[in-house]
Amino acid sequence: MDELSRTDRSTLRRLPQRGVYDLATVHSILDEGLICHVGFVVDGQPYVIPTIHVRVGEELFFHGSPASRMLRALEQGVEVCVTVTVVDGLVLARSAFHHSMNYRSVVVFGTALPVASTEEKLRVLRALSDHLIKGRWQEVRSPAPHELKGTLVLALPINEASAKVRTGPPIDDEDDYGLPVWAGVLPLKMAAAEPVADPRLSEDVAPPAYLTGYAGPGPAD
Amino acid sequence: MDELSRTDRSTLRRLPQRGVYDLATVHSILDEGLICHVGFVVDGQPYVIPTIHVRVGEELFFHGSPASRMLRALEQGVEVCVTVTVVDGLVLARSAFHHSMNYRSVVVFGTALPVASTEEKLRVLRALSDHLIKGRWQEVRSPAPHELKGTLVLALPINEASAKVRTGPPIDDEDDYGLPVWAGVLPLKMAAAEPVADPRLSEDVAPPAYLTGYAGPGPAD
Repeated sequence: MDELSRTDRSTLRRLPQRGVYDLATVHSILDEGLICHVGFVVDGQPYVIPTIHVRVGEELFFHGSPASRMLRALEQGVEVCVTVTVVDGLVLARSAFHHSMNYRSVVVFGTALPVASTEEKLRVLRALSDHLIKGRWQEVRSPAPHELKGTLVLALPINEASAKVRTGPPIDDEDDYGLPVWAGVLPLKMAAAEPVADPRLSEDVAPPAYLTGYAGPGPAD
Repeated sequence: MDELSRTDRSTLRRLPQRGVYDLATVHSILDEGLICHVGFVVDGQPYVIPTIHVRVGEELFFHGSPASRMLRALEQGVEVCVTVTVVDGLVLARSAFHHSMNYRSVVVFGTALPVASTEEKLRVLRALSDHLIKGRWQEVRSPAPHELKGTLVLALPINEASAKVRTGPPIDDEDDYGLPVWAGVLPLKMAAAEPVADPRLSEDVAPPAYLTGYAGPGPAD
């Protein structure tokens, strides 16, 4: 399956030219996103909660404490809408009206299921770590049995999803192109600063290479 | 009012020590956020849509095309949950389990109302521009009457909201502090690269100072 089938809720209505339904694009945005926003409904009230995620194959995984209001709701099999947004830049037009933003976003609809097996939980947590900071998992203490037991992992299939993408320069009204005002794109990117050592870290432990050259999240595999 | 009154939906249950209800903190996170995620329900289905916002006083404003599915739903007065998340860093612990993220997020609950007056719409659009790029509004062509008419502006009162904040180093299990693994925080921040001129821009227009030193969104006033 290279292309996601479209449903009413996953089909873009406004600016349909920005809609993208191919799996490779959807996956790459999910892989590049540092956080997602999970939407769900409790007693008619919408909640939108930020959390981290990882895509493995055609599933999106979340984790957290079994006491989390969000995970408890999701575990009941309620409908969710998970959105990952990567902002790429500010688009500066010659008119106020045509200002915009370059971005890539994905919306995934469906219901999540808890991951029961300890082995699969461990695989997912490792993938989450690899997605965020490749190389970290091998160096740290692995989860103890009681930590794994105290971690709820949920899986959401990525089969009803769409991406929305805007790229490129501003599109101005033809009459405005002659105005003497700067126009173009200001590219934006999440950037890492110098690592800050834990006050209790021994001075002979240097920051690892995967931090000094950190370029953001990537595919877990 | 310096402190937001707490309601059931705005009160943090998990990790209540991360909950912040003072207005100054809530406002500063909303002002620093580049985008928000708006959650709403249509026929029982949650939707989470990224958009830009601006806070003016104790209201949060959104705008867009009157044809937008999100704005059309909001205009009906449905309950929304708007979340702004600023990621400040990756928190690297000595155990996989205690890895975390430093972040500041705000959740606002309520119902939005359309802004009817053209003058107020214009004030909000200017505030939005000032919030994103101070100095831009004065240089560009102002909205024409038909552009203002074709822009829907909605106002959400910020009276039921809470912030959630994590800062500082990792908190490891006491037994793990002796492990020979780097621990600390990798600070993250949205950063701007060199502005990219529109291919149709005349070569004698240089990028303005507010772009070369761009430090992200700020308060509109």
